Amino acid sequence: MQKAFQDYYPDHLSYCYGCGRLNEYGLKIKSYWDGDETVCRFDPKPYHTAIPGYVYGGLIASLIDCHATGTAAAAAYRAEGREMDTEPPYRFVTASLHVDYARPTPIDGTLEVRATVKEIKGRKVVMALTLSAQGETCARGEVVAVQMPEQLARPPATRV
Amino acid sequence: MQKAFQDYYPDHLSYCYGCGRLNEYGLKIKSYWDGDETVCRFDPKPYHTAIPGYVYGGLIASLIDCHATGTAAAAAYRAEGREMDTEPPYRFVTASLHVDYARPTPIDGTLEVRATVKEIKGRKVVMALTLSAQGETCARGEVVAVQMPEQLARPPATRV
Repeated sequence: MQKAFQDYYPDHLSYCYGCGRLNEYGLKIKSYWDGDETVCRFDPKPYHTAIPGYVYGGLIASLIDCHATGTAAAAAYRAEGREMDTEPPYRFVTASLHVDYARPTPIDGTLEVRATVKEIKGRKVVMALTLSAQGETCARGEVVAVQMPEQLARPPATRV
Repeated sequence: MQKAFQDYYPDHLSYCYGCGRLNEYGLKIKSYWDGDETVCRFDPKPYHTAIPGYVYGGLIASLIDCHATGTAAAAAYRAEGREMDTEPPYRFVTASLHVDYARPTPIDGTLEVRATVKEIKGRKVVMALTLSAQGETCARGEVVAVQMPEQLARPPATRV
């Protein structure tokens, strides 16, 4: 079993509603490498509706958002030839999020989000993403993620 | 008391996780006119965190999304000089969503989302939005909403 990117986040950075493994109310989004792409699969709950039968656009934005920040971190480690459990830890936040909703997304079945890294430059990673359902692309995204300010990335007790 | 835009949506279009009054698990986002702008106020739950102390970006995207589709509907009625409880009902979906996260959004207190309509053209409404917390703008959005296809907007029993 491959470990998800988000499972490498330090505890104090694992309370994200979207992808934090320690947020008991959250979505617990998980992302993995698949060759040079990354992939996230998610089963929406019956109440994640826009209109009955279709997935809520805000959930789609959330999946794209967290999968992108996870991908940014994984790509930053990979660019340095480091494993994700080595120091210093990388954690990214979203600078901008763009989603084009191409068609209504059926709520039955598993959603698949895929990301490719378009650019890594300094503290910034730019990614293109797709979200598909039942084999059809339903949304496309572009996310610019930036490395979290060091002040926020540290455990609270060590912040100055 | 002004009635929220979302409270005019017909029952069968009121199950949106973001803003449906009949989605018991949802966020129940509410939007109102404030002069020529529209406003939505929302108190995040303690678990709507990105990192502790700050609001999850996917929630910000969700607030911008649903406030925009609500604003699009309200603007379409207003452009025709109609009240929102008159026929035919207007309901919009998101074609594209863009969010720039300007700074971390503090989770303590009420978030305020404001929208201005930039363009109404045919079935399309373009809006600019801001999200502020504690008096500071934390995110800016742009949403293109389009009128829902008639086939989806009808009550299920009358769909052909």
